[in-house]
Amino acid sequence: MLVKNPILNPTSKTHSEEHFTHTEVQLANRNSGIALETLRHDITPIGMHYLLSHFDIPYVEDENDWQLKIGGLVNNPITLDMQALKSLPQITQQVTLECAGNGRALLKPHWPSMPWTYEAVGTSEWKGTRLIDILKQANIKPEATEWVFSGADSGVDSGVQHDFARSLSIEMANNPDIMLAWEINGQPLPPQHGYPLRMIVPGWYGMASVKWLNQIEAIDYEFQGHQQVGTYVYKQDNDDKGIPVTSIRVKSLMVPPGIPDWYTRKRLLQSGETTLHGRAWSGFGTPIIKVEVGIGETGDDWHEAELFPANDKYAWSRWQIKWNAVAGYHPLRCRATDANGDVQPLEPPWDKSGFGNNCVQVTEVWVEDDLSS
Amino acid sequence: MLVKNPILNPTSKTHSEEHFTHTEVQLANRNSGIALETLRHDITPIGMHYLLSHFDIPYVEDENDWQLKIGGLVNNPITLDMQALKSLPQITQQVTLECAGNGRALLKPHWPSMPWTYEAVGTSEWKGTRLIDILKQANIKPEATEWVFSGADSGVDSGVQHDFARSLSIEMANNPDIMLAWEINGQPLPPQHGYPLRMIVPGWYGMASVKWLNQIEAIDYEFQGHQQVGTYVYKQDNDDKGIPVTSIRVKSLMVPPGIPDWYTRKRLLQSGETTLHGRAWSGFGTPIIKVEVGIGETGDDWHEAELFPANDKYAWSRWQIKWNAVAGYHPLRCRATDANGDVQPLEPPWDKSGFGNNCVQVTEVWVEDDLSS
Repeated sequence: MLVKNPILNPTSKTHSEEHFTHTEVQLANRNSGIALETLRHDITPIGMHYLLSHFDIPYVEDENDWQLKIGGLVNNPITLDMQALKSLPQITQQVTLECAGNGRALLKPHWPSMPWTYEAVGTSEWKGTRLIDILKQANIKPEATEWVFSGADSGVDSGVQHDFARSLSIEMANNPDIMLAWEINGQPLPPQHGYPLRMIVPGWYGMASVKWLNQIEAIDYEFQGHQQVGTYVYKQDNDDKGIPVTSIRVKSLMVPPGIPDWYTRKRLLQSGETTLHGRAWSGFGTPIIKVEVGIGETGDDWHEAELFPANDKYAWSRWQIKWNAVAGYHPLRCRATDANGDVQPLEPPWDKSGFGNNCVQVTEVWVEDDLSS
Repeated sequence: MLVKNPILNPTSKTHSEEHFTHTEVQLANRNSGIALETLRHDITPIGMHYLLSHFDIPYVEDENDWQLKIGGLVNNPITLDMQALKSLPQITQQVTLECAGNGRALLKPHWPSMPWTYEAVGTSEWKGTRLIDILKQANIKPEATEWVFSGADSGVDSGVQHDFARSLSIEMANNPDIMLAWEINGQPLPPQHGYPLRMIVPGWYGMASVKWLNQIEAIDYEFQGHQQVGTYVYKQDNDDKGIPVTSIRVKSLMVPPGIPDWYTRKRLLQSGETTLHGRAWSGFGTPIIKVEVGIGETGDDWHEAELFPANDKYAWSRWQIKWNAVAGYHPLRCRATDANGDVQPLEPPWDKSGFGNNCVQVTEVWVEDDLSS
């Protein structure tokens, strides 16, 4: 069937008309996002969960050679191998992770970095042990104020050579939900997810969940690592001192209805009753209390969707709503509200580097009365 | 350590200065490539193998509901469920697959489609059954000339609505190495790799390996499906009648040495002896007979690398070469030759749509005497 309708025109101006460099495209080639239709799965299939690797994915042949060293300002420096870690009490959690840079490509101007649109999200079932139990073993000295977590991945960013490292305050690190994980969805971590050991800091954007974790160090000053202060800071402009990026902002996404145009990813849908559905999530385990779906060009015709409880404290919630689709062009929007009263904005919140863009997703749908091929 | 050197400048002109649209970036967001450093693995980890999904990834809850129908011009139309398929004789093969559009972003001008650079490749161990055995059961009629293979994925491309479908001549389809596969690397296919059933047509570019396979039909004319004649055809320009894309062209890639700059992916390396290594492959199971590594700006200082036999007929070969790296800027190239005498070109071969670009990869490396942090 030959389909002729205006939304298949790649020059549509709904999205940014900005251009992207080949350097940005190369980052998008290597860092992968979820295919939005796989938001149907409660647990994102391995290989569909988003991936953002700053440096090279380390090549680890045998997890039996892996060591995690806990030192610095502690009374009892310890080194744990994977066998020791796996003999500790185990926990399993479903956690939704999102990249802090998700939505960066929608800002104007957009910051030159990984140009995510909506796809940098996923929910996995992680198995591991509680971080707090290990930190207790090491017995931190009273003068220490932070823990620094380092991975085996190394490289250069903005001219600064470093191993990937992030810190958490003592108080934050005491959250009993923070894990050291070695399994995803019932399988050993694949290399790209941090094999053999990674952190999961639920409720935070992904940069806190250090992969290929091999060192934890207690310090008594504010950690000045590049990944802590040189990036992952909300800034209005270059002069802004900034606010560290931590908790995931409230957000929702829709499973695109109907069938796609290959190139534009815009949608064609048979007219009649259909069910729109998707996912919604927020930070620090804050429950989602409402998802609304906006239908039409103006985006002010909002309908409350049915919301299902999340499978786990830090996992996304599923939502759905019936829609009687009539022929024509219908931009669809979804907007989540969390228990703190935070609501997704209609336009991208400005951030110089494109962090924390939780603006409402727009899905362009063209409904036809005779779509069946 | 603060690193200051010219290759960290994102405005370097080694790559295309062309710009890409947000539509292209969105395709790169959802279609994922291999991270080049994972070329170290003989078998690409699940989630690192390249993915190109034209339409939506079908949501299949239970493989027990899946049916493969074989019909058209056959004497014995049959329908097979997954249980029936799995009761057939099984084979396992390591196969290197590559997207026909790999390298498209390097052409000038580049065709507006998925903007691959080098990453659309991977090698998996596929388990399934031989296609030929099933086709024999169906007993094709003498007047039939082609088999058409259709997937459950549906959408629109260039205004034409269709299920993804490709054909093979009777002779091609009789190749006993073509599989219907239900496992990858010892696991059930994940949704994005064609769960529960896909073709593997080894030695061909990936478009022939139809995913979510649910129908095979014998016909007596040249199949005119969009994926057969509307794309995947080599053309010099719009007036060119064109040549169908089939066999993978000879190609090689290098594991990037040293450590990366996060943004540009250019490399920093400690001076001294290092081992460069990578992979090489060609189409139709043609063995690689030579890999050369070119060192330096001019790219005419070629050194033959050590080449290891492939693990399987259609799997890539590993190669390596020692290099005494001295301080300074060194663009590195690798160039493979196959047993047909085909050699990778230094510049992208022109194709209007960017198919079959097997030009030599350039890896930009800056060697320093004091890199250790």
